[in-house]
Amino acid sequence: MSIIVMKFGGTSVADIDCIKNVANKVAAQYKKNKKIIVVVSAMSGTTNNLIDLTRQVSKVSNSPEYDVVVSSGEQVTAGLLSIALNSQEIPSRSFMGWQIPVLTDNTFSKANIAEISIDVLMQSLNRNEIAVIPGFQGVTDENQITTLGRGGSDTSAVAIASALNAKRCDIYTDVDGIYTADPRMVPKAKKLDKISYEEMLEMASQGAKVLQTRSVALAMKYKLKIKVLSSFENKEGTLVLHEDEIMEKKNVSGIAFSLDEAKLTVIGIPDKPGQASILFKSLGLKAINVDMIAQSSSANKSATDLSFTVPKNELEEAINTIKSVQKKIGFKSIISDRDVAKISVIGIGMKTQAGVAQKMFDILAEKNINLKVISTSEIKISVLIEAAYMELAARSLHTAFELDES
Amino acid sequence: MSIIVMKFGGTSVADIDCIKNVANKVAAQYKKNKKIIVVVSAMSGTTNNLIDLTRQVSKVSNSPEYDVVVSSGEQVTAGLLSIALNSQEIPSRSFMGWQIPVLTDNTFSKANIAEISIDVLMQSLNRNEIAVIPGFQGVTDENQITTLGRGGSDTSAVAIASALNAKRCDIYTDVDGIYTADPRMVPKAKKLDKISYEEMLEMASQGAKVLQTRSVALAMKYKLKIKVLSSFENKEGTLVLHEDEIMEKKNVSGIAFSLDEAKLTVIGIPDKPGQASILFKSLGLKAINVDMIAQSSSANKSATDLSFTVPKNELEEAINTIKSVQKKIGFKSIISDRDVAKISVIGIGMKTQAGVAQKMFDILAEKNINLKVISTSEIKISVLIEAAYMELAARSLHTAFELDES
Repeated sequence: MSIIVMKFGGTSVADIDCIKNVANKVAAQYKKNKKIIVVVSAMSGTTNNLIDLTRQVSKVSNSPEYDVVVSSGEQVTAGLLSIALNSQEIPSRSFMGWQIPVLTDNTFSKANIAEISIDVLMQSLNRNEIAVIPGFQGVTDENQITTLGRGGSDTSAVAIASALNAKRCDIYTDVDGIYTADPRMVPKAKKLDKISYEEMLEMASQGAKVLQTRSVALAMKYKLKIKVLSSFENKEGTLVLHEDEIMEKKNVSGIAFSLDEAKLTVIGIPDKPGQASILFKSLGLKAINVDMIAQSSSANKSATDLSFTVPKNELEEAINTIKSVQKKIGFKSIISDRDVAKISVIGIGMKTQAGVAQKMFDILAEKNINLKVISTSEIKISVLIEAAYMELAARSLHTAFELDES
Repeated sequence: MSIIVMKFGGTSVADIDCIKNVANKVAAQYKKNKKIIVVVSAMSGTTNNLIDLTRQVSKVSNSPEYDVVVSSGEQVTAGLLSIALNSQEIPSRSFMGWQIPVLTDNTFSKANIAEISIDVLMQSLNRNEIAVIPGFQGVTDENQITTLGRGGSDTSAVAIASALNAKRCDIYTDVDGIYTADPRMVPKAKKLDKISYEEMLEMASQGAKVLQTRSVALAMKYKLKIKVLSSFENKEGTLVLHEDEIMEKKNVSGIAFSLDEAKLTVIGIPDKPGQASILFKSLGLKAINVDMIAQSSSANKSATDLSFTVPKNELEEAINTIKSVQKKIGFKSIISDRDVAKISVIGIGMKTQAGVAQKMFDILAEKNINLKVISTSEIKISVLIEAAYMELAARSLHTAFELDES
């Protein structure tokens, strides 16, 4: 019989009533298929409270002891869910990261999973128990507790499912699936039955914050199917899987948008090799994430202008960093623009079907929306526009690419 | 260099300011003596909150998963204290029960310590680290988390100190030592410099709730010195040690009192062997703790009356239990009395010096206080009196036995 891993996030286990609801969902699945592993997050708010406690003592957040404190939230949920299952006469036992063990490196607070032993879990499955595993936590080969960083519970669930060669990893959350666009902004958005890993990765990093990017990348690597579905409603959800398993590949399967970025333009960079390298290296050293990059000739033929986006909350630091290399590079000035939105159309079908970019530009032009920066990948076209037009742009593109709910 | 174990209870680590205060106390001790092990409780209120969460899910409180949940509170404090020490540039690391390991049996929620490995802790000491250990928790030889029951942190500290052959176990709490009587009731009570294990055991079980009985018994077994002192004041505290190390043994070293018991009298028990046995066995099966027992002849020569005390909150269950064996025993009736107080005079010197009981009875008679039940041990005389007289009795005895602060 094949194994199914069920993962429940913080809002799904927010309080005792939610935990009992989760127990009922797990119990129902157990009656259909005895081979169940459950992964849980901390009750919502708990991890933030624990982090806040550590911050009151010290600003350092990548110490081993930070992980000792913040990993405790998941332990509580795992124990409570096992108690809830046991009280329904369903055999269940919790297994902490160190009991399995989930071996990680020693990058405390952002550890990477190195290896998951399956013996303990297989024995538990063979006893027809439901193993409940706190997500987010691991242990080093020197027996120290680690955590995987924010959103690490999705990664735990996918890694455990992959190690056990599970049939599927079901991620229960507070939305009922992946939509063609964020329904709060695009009311006609519709739920997708299926989406490929690549598309999901673009959707996730473009602002559709349902699944952690890291867990999708891991699932893609191991060809593990993920299902995203609601803890609170009995609906079908969305399957995330390999593109080969999606029969009809649409040109465009979703629209993503974000207000999280700001635009920077560095003007009058002397036109000689290596100047962009100095610039981006200085930002890289400060761990500032540069996203869309576009270069254009300046009026002055011997110099160029360079535009790119950085996270809005790192704009000031980015400007200061660039100014610190102004002498070295010899550029003229910097202009910044916080009033921008990024809109992306995403679709695995783009790889083989042309004309998507052209159509996108046409539609935005029809609405008199000016494009500030353009960047493209194999399955995505992103444009930067004035923030005020984001909603109009998203809805127009959603309709034009025939994504609207009929 | 000899090892000192420092233990801090829930009120000593109640919030971040308290934890920083504890870090300062530990740091000061570390500068005098590098060989320090610290044991901590959960932040006050935390364990009760965790227990409450489990109760909302299930009434069962002796399951393995109950221990998974409630042991997490100490983990948080241990991590936070290590962070606080590290932020003062003092090397420190936390060690959970399973990391040491503190091996216990599998009596979940009330586990007994079987063995403590010292290798990991000795290595930590040799690195001049301060090991911070969450009290209350252990692990079975099958790698399951256990807890030692309420107040188990004192027991953890004493057991770890004994295993490490420590010089002393310092128990920091919210009082500054052991007094000749509870100072809230007897204002003239004075702090004792020293007290023997046996006396402390009687004081603890008689209502002076500073140290857990179980931890005192363990310290006595291993001849480990305990010092009770305040987390909040810099005062000397009280040493608990073997009676041989107390030069001047007083007749009476303390007065203990309690309102927690109720009196039961079973009237007209047929005067034949085995009747008391049936009675107390029935109570034992219900785990009802019987304390003071006194038997007297009844008016009827062929029957006796039996008086004894039980915890007030178990009185009703005790009465029902006794009624269930009424036919078998053939007694006439039961009388109960909740309106009673137990007063005890305690002193290791009593073993060799006579007249303490006589003096106690004289003083109570002087004040017209009637004795309902009397029971004695080698180092203690207890009497049951009407509750209203408790304060008067305690203060009079305290003065008469020359315990008053001069």
